[in-house]
Amino acid sequence: MIIEIPENSDFSIYNIPFGIFSTEDRSPRVGVAIGDHILDLAAVAELDVFDFNTALLEKDTLNDFISLGKEITSRVRKKIQFWLKDDESVLAGKPELFVKQSEAQMHMPVSVGDYTDFYSSLEHATNVGKMFRDPENALLPNWKHIPVGYHGRASSIIVSGQPIHRPKGQTMPKGATNPVFGPTKRLDFELEIGFICGKETNLGDSISTGEAEDYIFGLVLFNDWSARDIQKWEYVPLGPFLAKNFASSISPWVVTLKALEQFKTEGPKQNPEVLPYLQFEGKRNYDINLEVSITPDSGKETTVCQSNFKHMYWNMSQQLAHHTVNGCNIAIGDMMASGTISGKDENSFGSMLELSWGGTKNIKLEDGSERTFIEDRDTVTLRGFAQKGDIRVGFGAVSTKVLPAK
Amino acid sequence: MIIEIPENSDFSIYNIPFGIFSTEDRSPRVGVAIGDHILDLAAVAELDVFDFNTALLEKDTLNDFISLGKEITSRVRKKIQFWLKDDESVLAGKPELFVKQSEAQMHMPVSVGDYTDFYSSLEHATNVGKMFRDPENALLPNWKHIPVGYHGRASSIIVSGQPIHRPKGQTMPKGATNPVFGPTKRLDFELEIGFICGKETNLGDSISTGEAEDYIFGLVLFNDWSARDIQKWEYVPLGPFLAKNFASSISPWVVTLKALEQFKTEGPKQNPEVLPYLQFEGKRNYDINLEVSITPDSGKETTVCQSNFKHMYWNMSQQLAHHTVNGCNIAIGDMMASGTISGKDENSFGSMLELSWGGTKNIKLEDGSERTFIEDRDTVTLRGFAQKGDIRVGFGAVSTKVLPAK
Repeated sequence: MIIEIPENSDFSIYNIPFGIFSTEDRSPRVGVAIGDHILDLAAVAELDVFDFNTALLEKDTLNDFISLGKEITSRVRKKIQFWLKDDESVLAGKPELFVKQSEAQMHMPVSVGDYTDFYSSLEHATNVGKMFRDPENALLPNWKHIPVGYHGRASSIIVSGQPIHRPKGQTMPKGATNPVFGPTKRLDFELEIGFICGKETNLGDSISTGEAEDYIFGLVLFNDWSARDIQKWEYVPLGPFLAKNFASSISPWVVTLKALEQFKTEGPKQNPEVLPYLQFEGKRNYDINLEVSITPDSGKETTVCQSNFKHMYWNMSQQLAHHTVNGCNIAIGDMMASGTISGKDENSFGSMLELSWGGTKNIKLEDGSERTFIEDRDTVTLRGFAQKGDIRVGFGAVSTKVLPAK
Repeated sequence: MIIEIPENSDFSIYNIPFGIFSTEDRSPRVGVAIGDHILDLAAVAELDVFDFNTALLEKDTLNDFISLGKEITSRVRKKIQFWLKDDESVLAGKPELFVKQSEAQMHMPVSVGDYTDFYSSLEHATNVGKMFRDPENALLPNWKHIPVGYHGRASSIIVSGQPIHRPKGQTMPKGATNPVFGPTKRLDFELEIGFICGKETNLGDSISTGEAEDYIFGLVLFNDWSARDIQKWEYVPLGPFLAKNFASSISPWVVTLKALEQFKTEGPKQNPEVLPYLQFEGKRNYDINLEVSITPDSGKETTVCQSNFKHMYWNMSQQLAHHTVNGCNIAIGDMMASGTISGKDENSFGSMLELSWGGTKNIKLEDGSERTFIEDRDTVTLRGFAQKGDIRVGFGAVSTKVLPAK
């Protein structure tokens, strides 16, 4: 191996995720994560080893690189794996090609044209339905027929490390007759995975479930920040708006669908049977371990949720087929998030709303403090990895600190 | 006057709207509409009369031009007005600077980053509430406190002239127990006006109602195409999605807020009083006459709706203040649409849903046919203009033909 990869690294030789990084001496460019390092692809390009226009490795987003198509980007990934494993490859004896992750600044990996958020966990939809609506009829009649989704705000998607301010907004306190304005009292995370579209369609075209994975470049961890009190007051009848659009945070490394291929697994059985355009063949869920932690200002980190992407009732192929069945066009860089990934167990719930059951249960943290929702100066971290024997493919983390309201 | 302007032209000397056009011999570039012509600003730039980087007049969107800021773009507009009125100006004796609109192809005026649709007509919200929910409690409790809005799809916003296909999707027929799939049976227009953001904010920043108009570059007509049967089945609890994102059509000429200044008017009195961040001073509504027509394949056009933008309960300044009060960032080119602009009278309702009262009333067309919703090969046209004495500032039209489902 050209470079040392620590045991249990998320960025093993099997992963090779793409991202955008910068260093003190050089502006944002394309790199791949390997162990604790970044292989600087813009620098590798100077060795004249790539057969495409390498100017796009100097760009500050992956969009142009992704637009080369999966055939080329997969070949690049394979080449890199091959070079890294071969002690006499073009990368040998060139430590200047590798940048320590601790010395690099990560940036948004893509320019997001449109962002869609789904609502595809049965457990999450049921939990929310019980709390926000009717405990007896938690799941709405359309939920098992439609991978329900809505459009979110693309401009406020930020990368791990960028802090956010507690948002302000309108809420209707219990028992009040007039709304009030102020910082949210129920700031929450949502544990999600987002996929990044890798191929565009024209307006009027649809993608079948069979073709869908060709249109997915890769995945990131996605924290769909939410203000529950604002959401409750605003969301009827047109859905969440200011309760969500103040920020969504993502992990900086895009793990390719190719790298996750071997972690494919069956999803939950869908009953009733879905309409033909939503039916699919083969395994379409992914076994990806997920966890969320809270680190208060004290510095002591507590894991508050452990879940898995395999729980999703609706898979990504179905989401994409549904999204385009009416001819809606997608573009390279579009982000589609899963919706909160909750499991059956209480400790697998992917939001504080569910973990604290609407604020009625205290979550104890290691430093002795308690939480129902997220407090100022808390850092929320999502982590995720897939593992099979010694093979580990991980996402790293998305970590976001909450600063007081402006 | 350098060029003849037909009487009652939308594109009078008082207007000077910006757009993107192309001709057979030259690619998309920036122009302004004047009478039946387009003044080719990229060609004017070659006369060396502008004091900014004129390369941005060769771009295929207005985004870079708008990013010059209102001080500069307003000066350009004023200069053009001055030159057009002065028979001895730099434009004199240069007919090659003017392109006939009938010989030009119009393009999307801006690249839209994010698109938000509001729901700001009291009459429309009440009508829809009566039909979709509860006739006794049509207006939801939050409506008079919040300029309710939701995120829409930016990728599928198209310019006037581009046809659309009838979208397909899932619906739950009355009395059925299982949803069905097929072309929508309730295709509808929504008469709206969209504003285009002209100045960006950073994540975390808010815009006050006092500052809001500085952030609005200009306005276009906006047809928010809707599939009512798909909408009814999908929209609970996260809002409209596939019922809307198959297409929205806009008029090609961006009428600047400056050109509309003299048509400012009082809006409806807001009661109850709104929260302080939504309060505003002065006139913030605009008196813009609007109409919608249907032209079947027979070619005979029928006006089915006459409304006015002045009816809006929530104004654009309030919409923008609300949208950013939580720190949500906006970018140049972002589109914010008003929501359907219905008036009190039945013939002022801005959608077929309301005009046909949920499909229960037939709308008679001039060619003898009847409509409840929009049929294949119908062309829907929205027009709008403001007028005060002899001064007319208009939008032209957004016209879209519906082709059968693919």
